[in-house]
This record gives sequence, structure tokens and C-alpha cells, in this order.
Amino acid sequence: MHLTADTLNDLPRGQRINLVNSLSGFKSANLVGTCSDGGEENLAMVGSCFHLGADPALMGMIMRPHSVDRHSLEYLAATGVYTLNQVHEDILKAAHQTSARYPREISEFTATGLTPSYLPAFQAPFVEEARIKLGMVVIETQTLAVNDTVLVIGAIEHILLPDNAVENDGFVNIERAGTVALSGLDSYHRSQSIGRLSYAKPDKPTHWLHDNAT
Amino acid sequence: MHLTADTLNDLPRGQRINLVNSLSGFKSANLVGTCSDGGEENLAMVGSCFHLGADPALMGMIMRPHSVDRHSLEYLAATGVYTLNQVHEDILKAAHQTSARYPREISEFTATGLTPSYLPAFQAPFVEEARIKLGMVVIETQTLAVNDTVLVIGAIEHILLPDNAVENDGFVNIERAGTVALSGLDSYHRSQSIGRLSYAKPDKPTHWLHDNAT
Repeated sequence: MHLTADTLNDLPRGQRINLVNSLSGFKSANLVGTCSDGGEENLAMVGSCFHLGADPALMGMIMRPHSVDRHSLEYLAATGVYTLNQVHEDILKAAHQTSARYPREISEFTATGLTPSYLPAFQAPFVEEARIKLGMVVIETQTLAVNDTVLVIGAIEHILLPDNAVENDGFVNIERAGTVALSGLDSYHRSQSIGRLSYAKPDKPTHWLHDNAT
Repeated sequence: MHLTADTLNDLPRGQRINLVNSLSGFKSANLVGTCSDGGEENLAMVGSCFHLGADPALMGMIMRPHSVDRHSLEYLAATGVYTLNQVHEDILKAAHQTSARYPREISEFTATGLTPSYLPAFQAPFVEEARIKLGMVVIETQTLAVNDTVLVIGAIEHILLPDNAVENDGFVNIERAGTVALSGLDSYHRSQSIGRLSYAKPDKPTHWLHDNAT
């Protein structure tokens, strides 16, 4: 099948949205936790977090200011902090439910049964039930002219994770932590490790470091 | 375990890079195909492609201008086009091998045994062996001041995919196409569908649309 930008535009809107959302490959599934200066907590599912750099440790994400992302974006811009909480299978339905358009005065924590937890002197709530959690400091928010989405760049200030998730070389086994992958808008996947491949060099083929590790 | 930005900085560089690269969750695995005006082909693995919008259909990715990404970045900026090819298990080792630092005159296609293929009047090479492939037109490249990485924004011009991958509502079953997920720098995963969840609304709980679909 060969679609072009023109034939894509002829598709009904719902089909086009589902299709295009599937084309980048698997996505991360994270819950963004924020709290307004007035104490209103917000929790939102995002599928657009991406690694931006290790030194300094930075993460990017894309938010849509006219969607359910709007409260998160408002609170993180106002307070300068947010959390990212990797979604695992046990909290998946609750996590997806946070994408409903709740009014401002309703906390998605309360509505979905997830538990907010805090670190001292850090205003954004973590998800107690999550296993891998980041406390982020906003470095920059930038509206992208091409479609008015907002690129949020954050620095990693806190990392909370299970001791046994971190391997000797620093690699975090997110599969062991039950982290799920997202495809399209609403399709969730558990993972099965194929293995880790050695650092690639021009003069010799890469090889498996851990075959079918779990 | 609780790490902070400070304790993270105390880790040896290799450990820190592995750790931070694992924290965004699962990543997409795509091969970026480019061809210079002089006819030099380049193919590079990227783990940073993300959905940016469906209308218009846009994709973002992050590239590192001082790494092996440099030829890709140079060619896509010069020619205005590139391809994105979802990595599946059968081409995984070849795909990972493209991340070796080959000199300019060596095509990663030749070096790894993957086959370049072209559409008429589109200068960037697709990976013949890939199943889901996009022809992209560069909209913008922007160097991010925070760490000098480059955000590439592209519009989807061509979509090539197997007929049976697209479901009635437009959702593309990338699991059926064998697409792999990446975690960290070098860990690859096949997926197992948990299911699709219904569009979330405040007044009723989300439910599974397809339980354990494959």
C-alpha cells in the first residue's frame, strides 16, 4: 500500500489520526504529574517523552495546549517542575483513564485511584504506584510554529527506581520493571527482550551481549 | 534507590549514559535513509523519532551533529528529504550495525547488507527490507541551545506499508509487522499486545477494545 500526503488528507479524520499516530514506531508511556501553586494536582498520560541528552541529563516531550494536556502545561510552566512516571501493566487502565477531559477542580489522581506522593521541597507529585519515576525541572518551553504544539525540555533532578532494576553498566531493565510500550493512540504492549547488541564498530559485526535476557 | 542530579554526575560516564538513556521508557527504532547530491547514500539508526501531529502529518527526531548522525543530518538538510524505516527483528543486527562510525565514502547499506530502493522523484533511499517506511520532507531543523542537539521536523510525504497492517479504523498494527522497541542504547524488544483501550471519558471507565489481540 502506498499513501501520499494527498491521499492521506482524503481519509476520514479519525482514520488519519490513528494511522499517523502509528507511524513513528513504539512510544514511551509516561504519566506527567504536576501541581498548581493553588494545590490543584494534575496527572496526564503522555506518549511523546524522548531522551534528549545524558550530560546534562535532559528529556523532551510534546504537549498539545488545546487538549487535555493544557492543565499540565499550565502548571509545569508556572511552577517550573513536573514528574515523569513510567506506566507499567498494573496501573495501565488508570493511566489511560487520566487522558479523559476532567475539569480543573478534579484531580486525575482521585478520579483514577492513583496515589500522589511527594519529595521534600519538590512541588510536583509522583505516582506512588509507579516504579521508575523522575523529578524534572523545566529548562524551556517552546511553541513550535509548524503546528502550535509545545516542546517541553526538562532536566532530570531526581531519579527514583528499584535497586534491582539497575544493571552493573548503568542500564536500567525497564522490562523487568513492567514498563509498557504504546503504539498508535491506545494500543499497549508488554515487551519481551531480544537482547542487547554490542557497541557497533565499522571493522567488526555487532554481537548479542545478552541473548533473550529478561 | 534515589539518585539526584548531583549523584548522577558522580557516576562514571558510561554508566551515566546507559542509565539516562533508559529513563524515557521504550523508544522507537527507525533507520534514517539519506542520499547526498553527489549520490553518497547514508543509513543511520535513530531512537528518537516521535509523533508531532496528524494534521498536517508531522514527525520529529533528535540528531547529534558530532556523532555518527552527522552525515544523515548534512544530507537531509542539503536535499530536503529523508526516509524513516521501522526496524523489525529480521533486520535488527544490520540496523544496529549502521550506528558504527563509517567514513563518508562507505554506504551503510553496502556495509550492512541492506538494500536501498527509491521512489520516482524522491532523492532519499528507503530500506527495501523494511515493512513500514516513510518518505519525509524536511520542514525545519533547529539547533537546541540547551545541548546543541538538532531537532528535525519533517512532513510525511509517502507512506509505504503492508495492506494487512492497517486496521479498519486506520490503526497500524506495527506488532504484526514485527517492529521492535528499543530501550537504553542497545537493548531490543519484541512486543506482545496487551490490548487497545477505549477513548477515555470522565464519566465512565475505559475498557479493553481488543484483549490480547495480536
